[in-house]
Amino acid sequence: MLVLGLDPSLSCTGWGIVRVEGLRLTHIANGQVATDAKVPMADRLNHLYDAIAAVIAAYEPDRAAVEEVFLNKNPQSTLKLAQARGAVLAACGRAELPVSEHAARLVKKAVVGTGGAEKAQVQAMLKVLLPGAKIEGADAADALAVAIADAHLTPR
Amino acid sequence: MLVLGLDPSLSCTGWGIVRVEGLRLTHIANGQVATDAKVPMADRLNHLYDAIAAVIAAYEPDRAAVEEVFLNKNPQSTLKLAQARGAVLAACGRAELPVSEHAARLVKKAVVGTGGAEKAQVQAMLKVLLPGAKIEGADAADALAVAIADAHLTPR
Repeated sequence: MLVLGLDPSLSCTGWGIVRVEGLRLTHIANGQVATDAKVPMADRLNHLYDAIAAVIAAYEPDRAAVEEVFLNKNPQSTLKLAQARGAVLAACGRAELPVSEHAARLVKKAVVGTGGAEKAQVQAMLKVLLPGAKIEGADAADALAVAIADAHLTPR
Repeated sequence: MLVLGLDPSLSCTGWGIVRVEGLRLTHIANGQVATDAKVPMADRLNHLYDAIAAVIAAYEPDRAAVEEVFLNKNPQSTLKLAQARGAVLAACGRAELPVSEHAARLVKKAVVGTGGAEKAQVQAMLKVLLPGAKIEGADAADALAVAIADAHLTPR
């Protein structure tokens, strides 16, 4: 069972793929898709869609997982984030991937053991849980964390 | 010059295509894409993406136009709307369509002559501006209105 974790955002979407065999987790791949703020919105969204569709085609995950949206107090930020999320989820839909959403607290709790964990704690635990994984950046780390949480939280 | 007007929403996205020749407008086609609230979000978004990509492939518009997002006071509504918009704009990006955004006030002003026009006034003016057009519903009407506004507002 391969799980694709996703951390959608307009400027940089993180992704990470983890193999789940019973209680064993293995890192498969991770990466980040940046978009150029100077190009039109539709092109940025198409770039995210294409890149995630390419990841899905390359690794053929069985399911996907994202964090529930954090509703920013700035509605313009929510708008940008949600548009990016729409393009990324459409790519999952095209591949008929089931997509689970997990609350940020539950992701932290699954990875670190406490829902109030700091980002640095999550990143430190990723090194323990996925030894040897070269993690591309903070967004890829968040994506791997949601994939790990999905492995813990999804009944099989 | 063919303009594709779009009124994205998760439950029902409207679209409308208008030919612009100088000051003359001609209705080409319009429609609505409904999604089933009972299927997963990613599938609904993929359905919107596919349907709008099919409209673009069928009519080969030269440009697209959407209204600027109305930032609903309910952030969950903004989230749904923006995700739908992300999928629809990604389909425009794939086709390399330039996409313009127009404020709702300017759309009403372009169609009716006043930015504070009611929906019913907009729909009545559409019948005058696009005689003989069979309009599929309120969302298709909104999409045709933004296409007409784009014809007025975009310098050529």
